[in-house]
Amino acid sequence: MRVYLDHNAGAPLRASVREAMLPFLGPAANPSSAHREGARARAAVEMARAEVAALIGAVPAEIVFTSGATEANNLALRGALPATSQGMRGGVVTMAIEHASVLETVRALADDGTPLAIVPVDAEGRIDAAQVLDACGADTALATIGLANGEVGSVAPVAEVAAALRRRGVLVHTDAAQAAGRLPLDVRALGVDLLSLSAHKLGGPAGVGALWVRAGVRLRPQLCGGPQERGRRAGTENVAGIVGFGAAARCARTERAAAASAMERLTERLWQGLCARVDGVSRNGPTGEPRLPNTLNVSFVGCAGESLLLLLDLAGIAVSLGSACAAGAAEPSHVLEAMGRDRERARHGVRFSLGPETTATEIDAVLAVLPGLVTQVRAGAAA
Amino acid sequence: MRVYLDHNAGAPLRASVREAMLPFLGPAANPSSAHREGARARAAVEMARAEVAALIGAVPAEIVFTSGATEANNLALRGALPATSQGMRGGVVTMAIEHASVLETVRALADDGTPLAIVPVDAEGRIDAAQVLDACGADTALATIGLANGEVGSVAPVAEVAAALRRRGVLVHTDAAQAAGRLPLDVRALGVDLLSLSAHKLGGPAGVGALWVRAGVRLRPQLCGGPQERGRRAGTENVAGIVGFGAAARCARTERAAAASAMERLTERLWQGLCARVDGVSRNGPTGEPRLPNTLNVSFVGCAGESLLLLLDLAGIAVSLGSACAAGAAEPSHVLEAMGRDRERARHGVRFSLGPETTATEIDAVLAVLPGLVTQVRAGAAA
Repeated sequence: MRVYLDHNAGAPLRASVREAMLPFLGPAANPSSAHREGARARAAVEMARAEVAALIGAVPAEIVFTSGATEANNLALRGALPATSQGMRGGVVTMAIEHASVLETVRALADDGTPLAIVPVDAEGRIDAAQVLDACGADTALATIGLANGEVGSVAPVAEVAAALRRRGVLVHTDAAQAAGRLPLDVRALGVDLLSLSAHKLGGPAGVGALWVRAGVRLRPQLCGGPQERGRRAGTENVAGIVGFGAAARCARTERAAAASAMERLTERLWQGLCARVDGVSRNGPTGEPRLPNTLNVSFVGCAGESLLLLLDLAGIAVSLGSACAAGAAEPSHVLEAMGRDRERARHGVRFSLGPETTATEIDAVLAVLPGLVTQVRAGAAA
Repeated sequence: MRVYLDHNAGAPLRASVREAMLPFLGPAANPSSAHREGARARAAVEMARAEVAALIGAVPAEIVFTSGATEANNLALRGALPATSQGMRGGVVTMAIEHASVLETVRALADDGTPLAIVPVDAEGRIDAAQVLDACGADTALATIGLANGEVGSVAPVAEVAAALRRRGVLVHTDAAQAAGRLPLDVRALGVDLLSLSAHKLGGPAGVGALWVRAGVRLRPQLCGGPQERGRRAGTENVAGIVGFGAAARCARTERAAAASAMERLTERLWQGLCARVDGVSRNGPTGEPRLPNTLNVSFVGCAGESLLLLLDLAGIAVSLGSACAAGAAEPSHVLEAMGRDRERARHGVRFSLGPETTATEIDAVLAVLPGLVTQVRAGAAA
């Protein structure tokens, strides 16, 4: 038996999503073609667009399909950053715990002269709205704040920040890739201007994502070519992938509340079980709400994360050290470092991320083997 | 029965490609994950990379997977255009018949100040190497020349141009999306520096492509984030799509020569059949070699292309007017216009593009109904 607790790196494809995709893995179907095959593909893409829009309370025309959240984040930051009244590009404000696709992009923009401010977080990975607002100066044109952090599960006060920044004319982008399917999502309630999504974090296929762009927000396309996505993102559509994204979004919309409660109970069962069975454990991340219902990041004192990961994998349990998107498992997590952990501890945080299909039996299987493996790794280090 | 003759817009997924993809449409598989699921995905991506490299005589490490040829073309042009010795960005030379993803991208670069020269073509859509070399001045840093034109089937003298430009230190990029699977492809023989591919033109899935980047060519990533694709293109890999691309590349490598001969015979059968059965037909494109073996673009005098396309579709035959990637079927083809056709004729060129699975029976079915439909459209226009 495999126990897969790495949903924040990528969830398994849901069976219903696979069923929805299969009819589009066969006949050719370029949605730009005028014939029947093309029309069928076009209709499928537009139905999926409506499903993704419904997941976040948006209008379908505001959805731009991309190759994933990384492209969506790049498109939002490179494409929407407006010029200031002096004709210079405005500044960007972001958080120290953002995903690499945000941080690396704003750093690239900063290298080209864009003013950049990075807001710190507290020891639990939480963002203080007042600090974000303080970081926004007269030259700030856009703030980008991840809605939920995929490594430690903290949830940012995006609605509060966006309400204040709207009055100042600052655009707000949020990377909601880790929030979708886990937290309620409503772009109007959030009050943001741009929001990124990933299909494969919510049971859809990898290689598909979306950027929601509020009507009226100007977006410079980053991929030029055909007229797809209303001129905002060229390239023949990944029809099967988009159809899968739509199916996953539908599941997420209808099943999220129940799934989140179940994941929250199991995450707590895991954490309480670890506390009861293993000495020297500490949780990295928020000690209370708001937080992701499925994410538990734990440090085991004196226990090398990589070794533990390897033994867990051999025992049939898949977890990760921080983000799969970081440069390498051996690197310290920039999220844990931003939370004030020293480099050593930042290298060894073990992330358990549950999914809607995770069972109590699976959690108990982890609790049965993990204490022994921690002891084994600690003994090896002491030897 | 449907007869699908729009392979240049997108080929059906080959059955073997679908089989190869299915095992990756299920379990979660982020290739950056350190556990078994991640390792399996990583291995599959690297096997596919080797297959795609083998198709074009390249080294696997030189392959950068993208979301399609549009992204590959954008990446090549935006990412590889070097600065001149004065620190200014060098100029770009391209052809008037390039795909929209090349033309729109170089126009966007030109809007930002990049010098741009566009080389004309002759009445058969052919490119003259001497004209390309003449268009390259002291400020030219990169020339981009599509290897084969998807609308009319002309084949550019890329190897000849690349050999001459190499001596002048000008980078050469070729969009080979329409050539792959139809013409022999060898990056060393071509002598180019960058080459774009699309999976769905050769029986793979839509939403996947690749940019081949000669070792030593500097490429600035256009998607920032994780370390995927050796830092040249961030974002969780579209594992199932990449696996499908690899399987399609393997088919193309082993079956291309036989398939090309068969497609060439059937294309000629279609053309000769049309000549024998319909008055007022003319071919748009090269009258002889080199040309794509599967592409036939025809004008029917006094016959509205859109009406004919509709009637053909109702009769079970899928064809297109020029490129599916253009802004709308009602627009004249920029390729036919570049070949000197007037706007009226450039709107009405009908493209038949065959695939490896096309049969003589299908061609004969087209020849059986098409003359009557042409007569019908002409009668409607005259009425």
